Amino acid sequence: MKKLVSIAICLAIFQLALAQTPAEKQKIETIIKQMTLEEKVGQMTEVTLAVVAKGGGGNQDGSLDPAALKKAINDYKVGSILNTTAHALSVDTWRNMMTEIQDETKNTRLKIPVIYGLDAIHGQTYTLNSTLFPQNIAMAATRNTELVASAAKVTANELRASGVRWNFAPVLDCGRQPLWSRFPETYGEDVFIGTTMGAAGIKAYEEDGLKNITAVASCMKHYLGYSASRTGKDRTPIYMPEIEMREYYLPQFREAVKAGSSSIMINSSEINGEPVHASKYLLTDVLRTELGFKGLIVTDWEDIKRLNDRHNVAASPREAVAMAINAGIDMSMVPNDFSFYDLLLEAVKNKEVPMSRIDDAVRRILTLKMKVGLFDNPYPEDAAVANFGKPAYQALALDAAREAMTLLKNDNKVLPLSKNTKVLVAGPGAQSISAMNGCWSYTWQGNQEEWYPADSKTILQTITEKVGAANIVTTTGKGFDNVVNFDASQLKKAAANVDVIILCLGENAYAESPGNTTELALPEEQLQLAQAAALTGKPVILVLTEGRPRFITSIAPAMKGILMAYWSGKKTAEAIADVLFGDYNPNGILPFSYPRSMGEMVLYDRKPTEDVREVFNDNIKTGYMPLFPFGWGLSYTSFEYSDITLSNTILKGEENLTVSVTVKNTGAIDGKHTVELYSHDLFASITPNMQRLRAFKKITLKAGESQQVSFTINKNDLAFVNAQLKTVTEPGDFELMIGTKKARFTYAQ
Amino acid sequence: MKKLVSIAICLAIFQLALAQTPAEKQKIETIIKQMTLEEKVGQMTEVTLAVVAKGGGGNQDGSLDPAALKKAINDYKVGSILNTTAHALSVDTWRNMMTEIQDETKNTRLKIPVIYGLDAIHGQTYTLNSTLFPQNIAMAATRNTELVASAAKVTANELRASGVRWNFAPVLDCGRQPLWSRFPETYGEDVFIGTTMGAAGIKAYEEDGLKNITAVASCMKHYLGYSASRTGKDRTPIYMPEIEMREYYLPQFREAVKAGSSSIMINSSEINGEPVHASKYLLTDVLRTELGFKGLIVTDWEDIKRLNDRHNVAASPREAVAMAINAGIDMSMVPNDFSFYDLLLEAVKNKEVPMSRIDDAVRRILTLKMKVGLFDNPYPEDAAVANFGKPAYQALALDAAREAMTLLKNDNKVLPLSKNTKVLVAGPGAQSISAMNGCWSYTWQGNQEEWYPADSKTILQTITEKVGAANIVTTTGKGFDNVVNFDASQLKKAAANVDVIILCLGENAYAESPGNTTELALPEEQLQLAQAAALTGKPVILVLTEGRPRFITSIAPAMKGILMAYWSGKKTAEAIADVLFGDYNPNGILPFSYPRSMGEMVLYDRKPTEDVREVFNDNIKTGYMPLFPFGWGLSYTSFEYSDITLSNTILKGEENLTVSVTVKNTGAIDGKHTVELYSHDLFASITPNMQRLRAFKKITLKAGESQQVSFTINKNDLAFVNAQLKTVTEPGDFELMIGTKKARFTYAQ
Repeated sequence: MKKLVSIAICLAIFQLALAQTPAEKQKIETIIKQMTLEEKVGQMTEVTLAVVAKGGGGNQDGSLDPAALKKAINDYKVGSILNTTAHALSVDTWRNMMTEIQDETKNTRLKIPVIYGLDAIHGQTYTLNSTLFPQNIAMAATRNTELVASAAKVTANELRASGVRWNFAPVLDCGRQPLWSRFPETYGEDVFIGTTMGAAGIKAYEEDGLKNITAVASCMKHYLGYSASRTGKDRTPIYMPEIEMREYYLPQFREAVKAGSSSIMINSSEINGEPVHASKYLLTDVLRTELGFKGLIVTDWEDIKRLNDRHNVAASPREAVAMAINAGIDMSMVPNDFSFYDLLLEAVKNKEVPMSRIDDAVRRILTLKMKVGLFDNPYPEDAAVANFGKPAYQALALDAAREAMTLLKNDNKVLPLSKNTKVLVAGPGAQSISAMNGCWSYTWQGNQEEWYPADSKTILQTITEKVGAANIVTTTGKGFDNVVNFDASQLKKAAANVDVIILCLGENAYAESPGNTTELALPEEQLQLAQAAALTGKPVILVLTEGRPRFITSIAPAMKGILMAYWSGKKTAEAIADVLFGDYNPNGILPFSYPRSMGEMVLYDRKPTEDVREVFNDNIKTGYMPLFPFGWGLSYTSFEYSDITLSNTILKGEENLTVSVTVKNTGAIDGKHTVELYSHDLFASITPNMQRLRAFKKITLKAGESQQVSFTINKNDLAFVNAQLKTVTEPGDFELMIGTKKARFTYAQ
Repeated sequence: MKKLVSIAICLAIFQLALAQTPAEKQKIETIIKQMTLEEKVGQMTEVTLAVVAKGGGGNQDGSLDPAALKKAINDYKVGSILNTTAHALSVDTWRNMMTEIQDETKNTRLKIPVIYGLDAIHGQTYTLNSTLFPQNIAMAATRNTELVASAAKVTANELRASGVRWNFAPVLDCGRQPLWSRFPETYGEDVFIGTTMGAAGIKAYEEDGLKNITAVASCMKHYLGYSASRTGKDRTPIYMPEIEMREYYLPQFREAVKAGSSSIMINSSEINGEPVHASKYLLTDVLRTELGFKGLIVTDWEDIKRLNDRHNVAASPREAVAMAINAGIDMSMVPNDFSFYDLLLEAVKNKEVPMSRIDDAVRRILTLKMKVGLFDNPYPEDAAVANFGKPAYQALALDAAREAMTLLKNDNKVLPLSKNTKVLVAGPGAQSISAMNGCWSYTWQGNQEEWYPADSKTILQTITEKVGAANIVTTTGKGFDNVVNFDASQLKKAAANVDVIILCLGENAYAESPGNTTELALPEEQLQLAQAAALTGKPVILVLTEGRPRFITSIAPAMKGILMAYWSGKKTAEAIADVLFGDYNPNGILPFSYPRSMGEMVLYDRKPTEDVREVFNDNIKTGYMPLFPFGWGLSYTSFEYSDITLSNTILKGEENLTVSVTVKNTGAIDGKHTVELYSHDLFASITPNMQRLRAFKKITLKAGESQQVSFTINKNDLAFVNAQLKTVTEPGDFELMIGTKKARFTYAQ
């Protein structure tokens, strides 16, 4: 019954999100009729805050330049402004800034409010003391979709409190290329996790059809295939057959559209030689017609210009504008000038862009503004302020960080540690806050710790809280720059009187291109530090704070314990210490295959030929599998599965099949645990994946407790994209896998 | 006039290759009419020699098992046998074996001769004392298409002398993935080089329409896209949009079909989830209909079976057979048993494969046998023996190896060395013959030196011949296994009295899957040896014998000279010494971009976004380009180019454009030099490549001499594949580049 109610609520939300009353529609048409071409083109123009800020690009404090603001809003009639504050600002500053902007719109002929957008990726990046949650990659490790929804809800509240109603999130790009610098922003390599969590976030952001002050418009991004750069460098070419695009990259967007997302941002790159911003096929035929997306399509940073000056598919800047708008773009994130406005005006006057396309775009922009209530009240709502920084948010951040913690190795149960342990804490991660938060954390790059909340803790601090200062030795300085000159003999000496070394390695924060790297191995100096730590003879626990899997192949065997902490946000250090000292039983599991090396990037859903490929090569056979597989994660307790029971051994047509297993906590400690259901199509017209994740459930079991877990699947859960690009389920035999248990059934049409 | 004659000859050859007289056609139809279904299916069956060899799979010496031979040829009526001798055999053994096989066919009802095929990749792999030439990757470095043709001619002669008339060569796969273990068999990353050299080899193999005893049937391979495995592991999945396939991988085959190749072997892998052996689109629609290929389509090793048991697209072995034959396969390299024969019989009887498809396949098989003269005389021709092992072949092998040598670095003109130099020769390559020959050299793997000709020389030997034994010090043992335990202090001591260290690093031989690797960096011990050599303070010259670019990024700065020798065949050591000591002026240039690391695989024909991708990232900006670019190679003399002159600044419609430059040898030494013409389409509907190689010419200039070099191009030389998959040239501006000189013109339709 509860389930039915929640379905009903979901449907209601879905309806609300899409619904527009006749009166609202009429109001928009009335405005459009009054608008000049210049006003329309202005609405389609989005500039960066620096354009209207005091001091221009160096904007630091949120103060605006009235003349520049007037120019943008009155002369160029811009419809949207996006964020480039150099760092987070206070709630008050935000609200003042937003008020000033909307005040200026009151001086325009039609008084159309401006919509402000920014990247609140894992919490509200740009407001001081906002609550930062684990990055998506860490959220995926929790396998807890409710956490994703709850975190999105907090983010929506803190954005709205800051006067912002449009969030450029969630990232729906599938993380199958760990070299990519935005891998941390993805939900990892699996399609189902990304689809499920992406939709959950959107529903939370846009709850109640955006009518409440607890909601913001979401923006699905980056449509489409952005994460699949061949070289792994940000914004470099993607080569992807459409069958792959539809199998691994499109489902997340299809589901997100169904979940009611109001807007979408486009992939800056090119696919198969065609920049996505110029692709009528992807923007109009697939997104509009096939997926039925009705919302706003916005470009990414400067991407229309780049059709001309970077991608070289448009021979002039104006051709670039016409190309993008005709392909289906509604709004241009220009964002540094008003060139788009001038060029689009020219293009329309030259009949290079039809008025119908302009009206269509403006209609979508005005609809979004209406949905988020800007026509009712464009100003930051007073009531929204109370929803900022609630104490419960910190508890939620801690819950999420804890559930993300993924224990990769625990030799001889070295963990959890006793609180009487004498500990040497080493490594650049030990005293870095930014290396636990990553990108989009109070600054774009996330690496300026002066903007983090004062109560942010380092790993050294939280460990000290567990064992007391008297039990702590620390050898390396603060931050990633000081690790290079560590002294092995000093380390050995410092380790002489401790029981264990907790070694904190990983990556400092980065975002987008600055995170480009040529090598995923941990930097040589970190590897040397690990080797030196191991040589002390003391057990070493490796704690990794990183946004993507940096190779630890050479050092992993010498580590007694390995805890993958990802970039898990505000409470990462607390969660790490809780796990290390047994105050929390870890239950995160990997959302990606942790690779051994650049030449061994092999995904969990690989094809059969990838499992036999080294038949002749013993050297590789031994090193073929990932260092840690997708779904890997240890607990301090143990879980046992019964055999799988199926409601039927034949699945017919549109029927359902129930798959059940009983899980028992056979250890002495309570614990959370994720049960994952995988399927394998034994034979298919397209080489079948060795396994695909089809469902997961997170359960809590007390020591000794058992629970039956059931999944209901139908043929759609077994489907794949065939050579005709149709999503189909072919009759034949399937294998289902839960843990090491397997069961077979036959699907018949 | 000369050009016209050679065009006429080419056309004549082309006609001959394709031509079949009415009488020949009639003869084939008469045979087909007489054939039983079993005889037809037998013709389509190819087994490995081990099936008919004494001792079966362990066949070592070429002796056959009469009962097994009878079973294969009489009972199963097999049409073809392929090679798996464990090592090379003498010419006599080969001729006896071939005679024995054809003798057995005389006992069959229709006396159809067997066609024998093998992989003579860079010379006749499997006959003792055959002449081995540089691998394709090294041939590509010569930029000398005539050398390719001459070497193919020798290979044809030595095959024919051995009684073999079908060569599974050339490899036409484009080498854009250097991790791939068969990269050495490719002509490198450029389409034009592969297309040109592939066609040249085919014309030489099949010269005079295969009527002479100096010719063999060629086999284009591996159709299509085999080299483009995403992970770089042999026979693993390829994901490739068709636009990329047509731009980079298909042109070589299109041109090879035009050049008259008689047969084609299929890619063992899958493209976009469809095994190529099951792709009616690629085998029939593209290859037969679009490319107009009339010859024989043969599978690669066991690839029909694998549709069932490895790719899992056929639910049974028989379904696999029907799938492949219906897709367009004519002959199955089964090859370890007769299962294909039995299954195809069943499939035809069950009407799963139409008789028309069987007759079509058999017709092509018989046509090939007729073309190579097997119906006239199936036995090894006496006259062919004299064409084996001519002294001129050794000279040709030396010429080819010399032209392949690519001097990558020559700080302060450390090279050439004087012959009075005291030399320390070190490194595992110094005394390895197999590491200079690579795959398919007297054995499949090429790493058993006991089968190499007795007069094969090591680098240590050829250097000793230059400077005299008294001037030589050597520190490391023979072969790649002994390098691990080198002693740095011993090395330093040994270097004390020498002038220079010649350090020979690289790869030992490998072929196919055994060459799979997870890492392209040189093994750690080789890098350490290089570092130790540099630390002696003596200048170090690095000589690389390797089939693919193994990373030397960390050691390159410390090397005074670097010579890339590839796997250049029989005369590699001689060529290396000639270059090092100034007896030959190097002129090879790289046929690939020599990468810095796994994360920096960037090709010469990259897209514009790959050139700006690290705008925010200083760390990478400095290390972005390849270590050595495509086309890089130093000389002991210097060449200067005049400005480019164009016959017109507008190229209209089907007209020609002549591009000229005057090249001057401005140094004091005679030298060969390759002039390369690149083009750049400034704007296009598909993001244009930064550059594409469109033509090259190799010239010889005496010291001080000048020569005008002209290229005539037309719109087809500027074409690319557009979004509609058509090869087009779009009107607009183009830039031409020769060396550092540039010129622009406009193409107008």
